[in-house]
Amino acid sequence: MKTTRLLIIGGSDAGILAALRAREMDPGLEITLVASDAYPNYSICGLPFFLGGEVADWKSLAHRTREDIERENIRLLLEHEVIAIEPGTRRVEIREPGGRTRMTSYDRLILATGAVSARPDIPGLDSPGVFFLRWMRDGFALHEYLEERRPRSALIVGGGYIGMEMAEAFRERGMVATLVESSPSVLKNLEPELGAVLREELERHRVRVIPGTRVTALENFGDGLSAAGSNGFEANADLVLVAAGSRPRIDLAETGGIRLGPTGAVRVDRRMRTNLPDVYAAGDCAETWHRLLERPVWLPLGSTSHRQGRVAGENAAGGDREYAGTLGTQVVRVFNLVAARTGLIQREAEEAGFEARTIPFNAWDHKAYYPGAGTLHMRLTGDEAGRRLLGAQIVGPIGAQVAKRIDILASALFHGMRMDELEDLDLSYTPPLSSPFDPIQMAAQHWMKGKS
Amino acid sequence: MKTTRLLIIGGSDAGILAALRAREMDPGLEITLVASDAYPNYSICGLPFFLGGEVADWKSLAHRTREDIERENIRLLLEHEVIAIEPGTRRVEIREPGGRTRMTSYDRLILATGAVSARPDIPGLDSPGVFFLRWMRDGFALHEYLEERRPRSALIVGGGYIGMEMAEAFRERGMVATLVESSPSVLKNLEPELGAVLREELERHRVRVIPGTRVTALENFGDGLSAAGSNGFEANADLVLVAAGSRPRIDLAETGGIRLGPTGAVRVDRRMRTNLPDVYAAGDCAETWHRLLERPVWLPLGSTSHRQGRVAGENAAGGDREYAGTLGTQVVRVFNLVAARTGLIQREAEEAGFEARTIPFNAWDHKAYYPGAGTLHMRLTGDEAGRRLLGAQIVGPIGAQVAKRIDILASALFHGMRMDELEDLDLSYTPPLSSPFDPIQMAAQHWMKGKS
Repeated sequence: MKTTRLLIIGGSDAGILAALRAREMDPGLEITLVASDAYPNYSICGLPFFLGGEVADWKSLAHRTREDIERENIRLLLEHEVIAIEPGTRRVEIREPGGRTRMTSYDRLILATGAVSARPDIPGLDSPGVFFLRWMRDGFALHEYLEERRPRSALIVGGGYIGMEMAEAFRERGMVATLVESSPSVLKNLEPELGAVLREELERHRVRVIPGTRVTALENFGDGLSAAGSNGFEANADLVLVAAGSRPRIDLAETGGIRLGPTGAVRVDRRMRTNLPDVYAAGDCAETWHRLLERPVWLPLGSTSHRQGRVAGENAAGGDREYAGTLGTQVVRVFNLVAARTGLIQREAEEAGFEARTIPFNAWDHKAYYPGAGTLHMRLTGDEAGRRLLGAQIVGPIGAQVAKRIDILASALFHGMRMDELEDLDLSYTPPLSSPFDPIQMAAQHWMKGKS
Repeated sequence: MKTTRLLIIGGSDAGILAALRAREMDPGLEITLVASDAYPNYSICGLPFFLGGEVADWKSLAHRTREDIERENIRLLLEHEVIAIEPGTRRVEIREPGGRTRMTSYDRLILATGAVSARPDIPGLDSPGVFFLRWMRDGFALHEYLEERRPRSALIVGGGYIGMEMAEAFRERGMVATLVESSPSVLKNLEPELGAVLREELERHRVRVIPGTRVTALENFGDGLSAAGSNGFEANADLVLVAAGSRPRIDLAETGGIRLGPTGAVRVDRRMRTNLPDVYAAGDCAETWHRLLERPVWLPLGSTSHRQGRVAGENAAGGDREYAGTLGTQVVRVFNLVAARTGLIQREAEEAGFEARTIPFNAWDHKAYYPGAGTLHMRLTGDEAGRRLLGAQIVGPIGAQVAKRIDILASALFHGMRMDELEDLDLSYTPPLSSPFDPIQMAAQHWMKGKS
């Protein structure tokens, strides 16, 4: 019997998880994974902590070592680039490190090419001293610049996760950090009032935050750069980090006639199948099924990549697993605060046609009489008609279990719970860690009171 | 139209929550709450922290002030004791603070008399210097002894929540603390290996732990007490705290012919109704519906009392709400560790007829490359046949979100999730706080691997 050959393109989370899951499913499968760099399965989410100095050795960022992966009998072709897919003959064209190209056959293919940094339309974006941060090589380039040039100031374009984490990293290095965000608040995927709480935290740690401002030009000036923007913004900095989001890396998909969805990412069904037979896609290059919206969205997150990769690997190895869907659950630490969300915010819920209501509620994270209580700033979004929970946001101190509190709500969303049912959950209580009703249950009770 | 009179007996969590919920439901209801002490709605779970000195003022232990409650038009009869129930005439006999008794009528009655400390059969239990800890007055008596006598050593009988918290409290005061537990490990409602982790933490903080030993005699000796026990145990101490559990306070229920269940607590249905018309019971005096076992159990917990109280109050005010059931979710902090559980442990699952399997799994609470990662000691219990999650236990450092991780699992249990579905939950991820699959999901994946 002929051995089935599974080829996986992409060595980050989705690709590696697909390979590992396929191996679990079928010990006889021939699995080859092609990665364009030499860093398979690195935690690129950890780069800001390496750049800030909290993580001393970049090698520790590996989720698994190369040996861990190869021990599972997965063949790694590192620093190889797949440059074309020929679905008709089930072959791909691979460029080897030396530049030579060759054709390789597959029986099943998983596309996990990830995303690339978005390049906003700013003149001067290619100037020396302007950096992006997505892949390991981006991190190395910035690290080298930081170590060799010892810049004293940084301008960050974009107030999302990476922008805020890098603002902290630059401050950790003792640098002057300025963060420019085009929206009225940082972390614009939270309600503005919660963005304001984060902005205060950034400013408390002497990050200069300039919201509502669009950077329109960058140019080299002396040893550094000068930037200009809307509202008369002008600043000089020794380096500029552009953290303006990302977009799916789909050039390779297009060579093979793999269909994209309206989001611009590879269209997949809930089994991670593309339009081509035996071709799957997973991770940041692909769309993801939204469990509440019940339609595909593009929401590139490491956690989603892991889950999608496992589903793609399982199905490519002959399984039949459906991806349960994303809720967009996400979290970031900003100095001593943690900000997290799951599900929909008011605007998104309205756009999706829900008659939505978002209610703010603040509470201590544990009984106030016990030392160390901090404020949880919460927002619950529900629909008026069915009283169904639609989404939640929490900002609170590190140590206040913000992330796992959002995850309780993510579990509730996963099961379609109603607001009035949340208090039925049997959650743990001890005075140093919570209240008899957890603050998230108190927030739901508060939401219901507004209802009656 | 005649006003409906709701009478509530008991001023702790269940009684007060019932009163508040009844008021929310019906502004016209006449609500009277009779409490035998002067401390309605105090957080008795907070007493160890008051006694250890972390909470300076006992008044701060009030969940709500007396004024908060009375503002809701709830009449409080404090230091009044209901001494008999006459269900035939719908009257109760009340003893006033001065000793005079009178009869009072009700239309609906909620019994929330709570629990009393268990008194193990140990000669000398009434000796001066022997204390129990359940109600505020117990806390005051012990506090006075600590402040006036300045004892230097304490012997604690019982290694459950209160025993461990009080061991810490005595150490906070600089006292010598010895904890004797009849079971082979402390916190016997966790697997013994996790009890061993807690024991090490207690010993690290110089609590002497003596497991597998039963105290058989106490007597006054000099200014203090001497204790003797099994295995030749002998010890002297300036005080003895007996923390050997509790039992439901049902003497009053028995006067009125209110039926008890096989657990010895008041039998209630899922609407918190007793066998008598219009008589409800809630909190530690009553049984509680177990969501997994699908039968009543007696599991006295503050969180359960709050939930049951609300259900009783809602139904007594004319609503129709079913109690969703307990999962026995509970948590305790012991020095720098947190121990939590939800659902069933192996022994309980077996006793309930499940073909159960419990798998240990240890993991870092967040990506190990980020500073401060600590070990989560986890146990997941599932049934072999249906792969259904049955229970979970976690012990890990404070700061590792142990309590809210158990709560994610409690939510999963609430919805009857299978082990293989746990990885489908869209949980939050950032390297300083978790992993792309949360450790609890990794534990479930590990459980499934043992399965295939």
